[in-house]
Amino acid sequence: MPEPGPSPSYRRTDRNVPTRSADRASYDRDLVHGILDAAYLCHLGFVRDGAPVVMPTLYTRIGERLYVHGSTGSRPLRMARGQADPGLAVCLTVTHVDGLVLARSAFHHSINYRSVMVHGTAYPVTEQAERRTALDAIVDQAVPGRSADSRPANTKELAATAVLRLDLDEVSAKVRTGGPNDEPEDLSLPHWTGVVPVVRGYGAPIPADDLDPAVALPGYLSAL
Amino acid sequence: MPEPGPSPSYRRTDRNVPTRSADRASYDRDLVHGILDAAYLCHLGFVRDGAPVVMPTLYTRIGERLYVHGSTGSRPLRMARGQADPGLAVCLTVTHVDGLVLARSAFHHSINYRSVMVHGTAYPVTEQAERRTALDAIVDQAVPGRSADSRPANTKELAATAVLRLDLDEVSAKVRTGGPNDEPEDLSLPHWTGVVPVVRGYGAPIPADDLDPAVALPGYLSAL
Repeated sequence: MPEPGPSPSYRRTDRNVPTRSADRASYDRDLVHGILDAAYLCHLGFVRDGAPVVMPTLYTRIGERLYVHGSTGSRPLRMARGQADPGLAVCLTVTHVDGLVLARSAFHHSINYRSVMVHGTAYPVTEQAERRTALDAIVDQAVPGRSADSRPANTKELAATAVLRLDLDEVSAKVRTGGPNDEPEDLSLPHWTGVVPVVRGYGAPIPADDLDPAVALPGYLSAL
Repeated sequence: MPEPGPSPSYRRTDRNVPTRSADRASYDRDLVHGILDAAYLCHLGFVRDGAPVVMPTLYTRIGERLYVHGSTGSRPLRMARGQADPGLAVCLTVTHVDGLVLARSAFHHSINYRSVMVHGTAYPVTEQAERRTALDAIVDQAVPGRSADSRPANTKELAATAVLRLDLDEVSAKVRTGGPNDEPEDLSLPHWTGVVPVVRGYGAPIPADDLDPAVALPGYLSAL
């Protein structure tokens, strides 16, 4: 018999079941992975002196682990390792905006979005091989294939970079799709109603001033 | 003599001066307003049972105040009003990604971005006129001109919507622009280097299934 794989769903907990729009919440592992893999910037929350801090930062997913990196001097990375009991309570959130939803009533205006929220404790990664793998994956999360086409970090650079690991355990996705939900009595109002898609893309790559003109644009950039 | 206007800069505090890349930080009021006005989605952080929570939500700016809204049943809005001493400590962060910065070394990869972080206490808005103004402005933040072309909230809808206010007081911006910063000894490496612009736009509006075909697309949508 095959070994049992991981559950297809993350577990529900007191803090990842929303108090509203619970029908938009999902704990499906594949859905969560898809939302995480389609982005590279997250908003990382932690508590400092009792108050919340939310900072944008790059991340990557490797299996059931997320990694974020930063200077060894940055606040969350110092906080994560600067304690007798290491680890930093975090909430890592990733959001894609897919559309503006225009209803006939101001009240029913909304956006279509896909978001993932991860609660947990982030730990500093101390093992060198895991640090290197994570740093390469962070580069590849934004530009797949790029880490193999750049000069790898040297010992000094590795030492200057802190990496935090956050396991995917207490995780939820929230997704809204579709058109507006107007009240029946509003359907004859004369306002335009529908969805304005929000699209994201890339402009033509701008070579650095000092790039040797003989260096061609790599295929992984044309493919973006 | 003219009355003195507000200071052109927000105040520096212990928690809004970054420990790293401090040269990228700014407290310039106009810069902050510009970054806030170019977005409509923020990531709002607060502390629940000692742990951070980061949720995406819509916001608007009116002068030196930000407003976010939500169901009266949502967690941060219940928390903000459910105390003898009302108010909820929050960190509200807005981030635009402008480009992927590809250096010759993995270490110097970065992104170009503009972000604003606001620390403070969010208070429930109880005055009806201010609530209505804020809700209209939240609709107009994403689609300027839209609130005047929709059915205003009625009493029941207003009662179901909570609005939080956060004053712009402890505020910082962080901005990275320009190309990669490679090490001098890496300049002859054969890797493509430069910036891939990240662009955001809108697709063609998709009318709702039940929209009367006689209703034309309004000018404020063509202008998006």
